[in-house]
Amino acid sequence: MSLFDRFRRGQLKLNRIEALSDGVFAIVLTLLVLDLKVPAITHGRDPVELVTALAGMLPNLVSWLISFIIVAKFWLNHHHVMGLALYSDYALAWLNALFLMFQTFVPLPTALMGAYPDNPAALSVFGLVMALNTLLFMILHRYILRHLLRPELRDEQDPLVIRKSFIGVASYLVGAALGWVHPVLAFAAYFITPWFFIVPAAPGPAASPHPDSRPAG
Amino acid sequence: MSLFDRFRRGQLKLNRIEALSDGVFAIVLTLLVLDLKVPAITHGRDPVELVTALAGMLPNLVSWLISFIIVAKFWLNHHHVMGLALYSDYALAWLNALFLMFQTFVPLPTALMGAYPDNPAALSVFGLVMALNTLLFMILHRYILRHLLRPELRDEQDPLVIRKSFIGVASYLVGAALGWVHPVLAFAAYFITPWFFIVPAAPGPAASPHPDSRPAG
Amino acid sequence: MSLFDRFRRGQLKLNRIEALSDGVFAIVLTLLVLDLKVPAITHGRDPVELVTALAGMLPNLVSWLISFIIVAKFWLNHHHVMGLALYSDYALAWLNALFLMFQTFVPLPTALMGAYPDNPAALSVFGLVMALNTLLFMILHRYILRHLLRPELRDEQDPLVIRKSFIGVASYLVGAALGWVHPVLAFAAYFITPWFFIVPAAPGPAASPHPDSRPAG
Amino acid sequence: MSLFDRFRRGQLKLNRIEALSDGVFAIVLTLLVLDLKVPAITHGRDPVELVTALAGMLPNLVSWLISFIIVAKFWLNHHHVMGLALYSDYALAWLNALFLMFQTFVPLPTALMGAYPDNPAALSVFGLVMALNTLLFMILHRYILRHLLRPELRDEQDPLVIRKSFIGVASYLVGAALGWVHPVLAFAAYFITPWFFIVPAAPGPAASPHPDSRPAG
Repeated sequence: MSLFDRFRRGQLKLNRIEALSDGVFAIVLTLLVLDLKVPAITHGRDPVELVTALAGMLPNLVSWLISFIIVAKFWLNHHHVMGLALYSDYALAWLNALFLMFQTFVPLPTALMGAYPDNPAALSVFGLVMALNTLLFMILHRYILRHLLRPELRDEQDPLVIRKSFIGVASYLVGAALGWVHPVLAFAAYFITPWFFIVPAAPGPAASPHPDSRPAG
Repeated sequence: MSLFDRFRRGQLKLNRIEALSDGVFAIVLTLLVLDLKVPAITHGRDPVELVTALAGMLPNLVSWLISFIIVAKFWLNHHHVMGLALYSDYALAWLNALFLMFQTFVPLPTALMGAYPDNPAALSVFGLVMALNTLLFMILHRYILRHLLRPELRDEQDPLVIRKSFIGVASYLVGAALGWVHPVLAFAAYFITPWFFIVPAAPGPAASPHPDSRPAG
Repeated sequence: MSLFDRFRRGQLKLNRIEALSDGVFAIVLTLLVLDLKVPAITHGRDPVELVTALAGMLPNLVSWLISFIIVAKFWLNHHHVMGLALYSDYALAWLNALFLMFQTFVPLPTALMGAYPDNPAALSVFGLVMALNTLLFMILHRYILRHLLRPELRDEQDPLVIRKSFIGVASYLVGAALGWVHPVLAFAAYFITPWFFIVPAAPGPAASPHPDSRPAG
Repeated sequence: MSLFDRFRRGQLKLNRIEALSDGVFAIVLTLLVLDLKVPAITHGRDPVELVTALAGMLPNLVSWLISFIIVAKFWLNHHHVMGLALYSDYALAWLNALFLMFQTFVPLPTALMGAYPDNPAALSVFGLVMALNTLLFMILHRYILRHLLRPELRDEQDPLVIRKSFIGVASYLVGAALGWVHPVLAFAAYFITPWFFIVPAAPGPAASPHPDSRPAG
């Protein structure tokens, strides 16, 4: 049996994949703040010196805010596409692991951009990593649509959804390029990009509340 | 379709939102202790020097204790208000993400207050962040009451509950102001405030135990 | 309504309390290793120097191993006593939060004992914190037995179980005292103590496997 | 009653053991990135210096990538073998805790190999720890097959599966030996080894999707 066939086997419980993913998302979201360190000041009691030092952390704070929104957006869309799948095979488990791998990577480019906000390389690395994350998410999404889509949801899917997602990749790459022009332009591009997919492209009309939509547990 | 309409769409499973939130709460509660670092002493075998160094960590210990109680209180109330919702739409998912964002921020003002316990700016920042957290929680609570409340719980809600919650915001702001008078007053205010909402304002008479209240899993 | 009455109210879903607790336990168990830092050596390619440096980390490794076993033991017993409860009221939620608070504290005395293994104060602090943790667990256990015990389990409980648990407290205190005699005696006491309750005192005869004992999810 | 008999008692809910394990896996996967630190450069705005510094982190990046794949592989196989068990007794809970203990240990040898990529001792330690992890997993797997296997899965198990797993142990030990020859050979061995068990040895023919394989929650 080929390696490819082996990956197409397996029926994993989606709830355990979601548990691992939710754990990783929760930790990434929380670790982002570890880059925000208490500033060292010379006169411990001086409020002016402390406020000045905190104000110097503005690039770190903005990096943190942007990354938090981006990762939260990935979580919401991840929740959406996992809900489209009937079950998980080993291939999906590994595509998901690969996607999570670069979610856990996010704290590094975030800290890099916070530490060197006027270094074009730091700004570009952030955009490149986010473009890669978007690509990995699109591969995950596409695999579910092609191989594991719940039959009852087949008609509701937008056949162009993957193609449309390239707007996110393109926008992060534009931000990476703008980093060589002016830092503020890159920050702006990174702040705007998640808004393209701030909520999943819903498959149908606005849902009305159903009492049974709430899990019994 | 406007952005506002898109946020009102979506029906997310509350259990996955709770899983993300519980993960974030658990990590924030555990990360708070990372600010308590092993003190460096010159004579490694000297118990007196070590105890003295540990005693010098008292402000850090008190900051840790206060923050732990505040975050645990937020967890308990979060559990309560999420139980009021029928399901989650995208707007609630994002209001929840915004609330969690500033929960993950808590370790920074906690460490700041532990490091500079007699700096009025450090004491004030702690109070301002907690006031902001309380406000974000109130917005979450209000959104659920207005748009997603389970019909059977409608009659039990206190119509003034959101208005009453401003006592918490006010109390943290008083603490932030007292930081400019004396550190102990600010610490006292921050220690007292969570007791206002140490348990959720229960909707009715004392509940009697029902055997079926325990989930089957 | 008095504060005491308010704590006796509320019916929380045990699964969300367990989710928070499992998250905290998982993070504490994993954070313990953060105290084991890559040693700095002067000749990066020299295997002898690196092995010597790693050997110097033996106290840290032993502290880590002991703490891991102790926290894992608390997790197993926590799982057991939570299974005895019918539901959770607010008092149990707060007793549990207090217990978790000092579980999250464990990395500090662990790192302290690893850093200063021949300092009696460091050895004593470890024992005192573990004695406190054991006490907090006993209070949790006792509260469930008194107020929230599932009726069908009433006859199977050992009425002396709380009293017997004092052996753990006593043993940690003995270790704390032995730290002033010789480090190895304290380490030995801390290594032995969790074995008293390495598995919960089971309520009846050895359980036979039931096919329905596995959750459906 | 002997200690051995006490370990064979107890019927734990597998879902709470899985919750603890998933939490630990998620945190280990996410903590691995904490070893990737923002490099210090002298001219903050110089992109060439920053890119050069980032390029110097290549060994850390490769160590991170290898460890992530190994831990994700352990997660997938852990998911598989836990699905074979009818329930958990205390012995399984402790074998699982022991296995998790050395999963939480993984960040240390990963950081060690990243910091000293041309030190044979650092390379060997990584292989030895991974061989130990594989052994602990095999003990867990074997215990489930012997004592807790779900009856309906009995005929589908490969009776030689444990014996075959020694290939993983052997391969890590070969990597540890190759570290004394050339770093690249050790890295290659560590990168190749997880591919032997990149997916669990499935018990039967390729599974076809069943609509009911998805949990209701």
